[in-house]
Amino acid sequence: MGQPDITAAERDAVYKTIFGRRDIRKHFTAEPIPVAMLGRILKAAHHAGSVGYMQPWSFIVVDDVGVKARVRESFLREREAAAEKFDAERREKYLSYKLEGILESPLNICVTCDRNRIPGEVIGRNSMRETDVYSTVCAVQNLWLAARAENIGVGWVSILNRQDLHEILNIPPKHVIVAYLCLGYVSEFPEIPELEAAGWRSRLPLEDLVYFNQWNGKLPEIYRELAAALKD
Amino acid sequence: MGQPDITAAERDAVYKTIFGRRDIRKHFTAEPIPVAMLGRILKAAHHAGSVGYMQPWSFIVVDDVGVKARVRESFLREREAAAEKFDAERREKYLSYKLEGILESPLNICVTCDRNRIPGEVIGRNSMRETDVYSTVCAVQNLWLAARAENIGVGWVSILNRQDLHEILNIPPKHVIVAYLCLGYVSEFPEIPELEAAGWRSRLPLEDLVYFNQWNGKLPEIYRELAAALKD
Repeated sequence: MGQPDITAAERDAVYKTIFGRRDIRKHFTAEPIPVAMLGRILKAAHHAGSVGYMQPWSFIVVDDVGVKARVRESFLREREAAAEKFDAERREKYLSYKLEGILESPLNICVTCDRNRIPGEVIGRNSMRETDVYSTVCAVQNLWLAARAENIGVGWVSILNRQDLHEILNIPPKHVIVAYLCLGYVSEFPEIPELEAAGWRSRLPLEDLVYFNQWNGKLPEIYRELAAALKD
Repeated sequence: MGQPDITAAERDAVYKTIFGRRDIRKHFTAEPIPVAMLGRILKAAHHAGSVGYMQPWSFIVVDDVGVKARVRESFLREREAAAEKFDAERREKYLSYKLEGILESPLNICVTCDRNRIPGEVIGRNSMRETDVYSTVCAVQNLWLAARAENIGVGWVSILNRQDLHEILNIPPKHVIVAYLCLGYVSEFPEIPELEAAGWRSRLPLEDLVYFNQWNGKLPEIYRELAAALKD
């Protein structure tokens, strides 16, 4: 009964994928993604958990150059608007970064959440209403990791105007736009996340982010070994 | 330069983990989670992508029985309130389901999002402000999959009052509570998701959830093979 165990070798493959996942912007190649591979990646997304088994996600796969070009125009407008919020030094850096690969990547995928997918009450959504959108983000993360496992890079473009996307892709207003992703083969998966390599920010020490039994609660003695593990 | 490729065997291990992940409520055993394993699982969460490299997450690990008991009281109150929303037949079913393993699982983990983790403007968050919370959900999904790869079950308890959790765990108001998770070894990982096995809802056909180039856009001829793949 039930599923077979995951072996140690399989576990290590999962960690290799999780630690090797990157937000890809500038390493896309034009090589097309095989259709069967795209099917596997979408199926991985569809197998995320969801509150009340809602499966509230939809996926719009975009390969049309005209559609991509309109999305990129939205990106450029939003980037310009965001640049104004930084001080001069950071603004220059911000504008020098390559932050999306909308046109270079062979496929884009817009992921949406249908908050009304189920008629009537949704089991488990009464207290934390946002859990349907959270479920959709879980699907995005599954997609991202499945793509990495296929050696396909994914870049999440958040510098986009939702209203623009509703119009460009004809998405009905009641569907929440959760993510706009660029997918493609890459010339390389960088060892270090790009914003870290560029000196924008560093990875935070994990041991500062873990508490015990309450906010700011210190590690009990029996977990001393954990403190060492978190420092690695 | 860059990372080594993921092999086909490693890819298959990732899919085995993604497709084998379950929301665990009733199969927890009392066996403690090894400390080094917990460290690996938290590290996997910490390696999620995040908007502007914010890493906005914090983790409160709970093993104290008194704390867990107070959390469970919040669950019971919320479950009662939610039951009123269902019609009589579904209410009876709803109340008969085991929807959490707060006390039986050796560890609970509350995951929060600090929307002010970075002083000043966050790169990439100007247009879609919620992406910091979405990043935290990505960390939750990494945690969930890493746990599955370690043969550790995770249950996401969404039937909880956020204000109760703020009080029980002393979480400052400005931190957003994203998830409350139960972790432990399991007697089995069920083959079929529990709400599906119980006849509450079925898995939706994936081919109905995938569009091309616009909402409701049909699959182009070159993707005919994909339609077949999505039906599997």
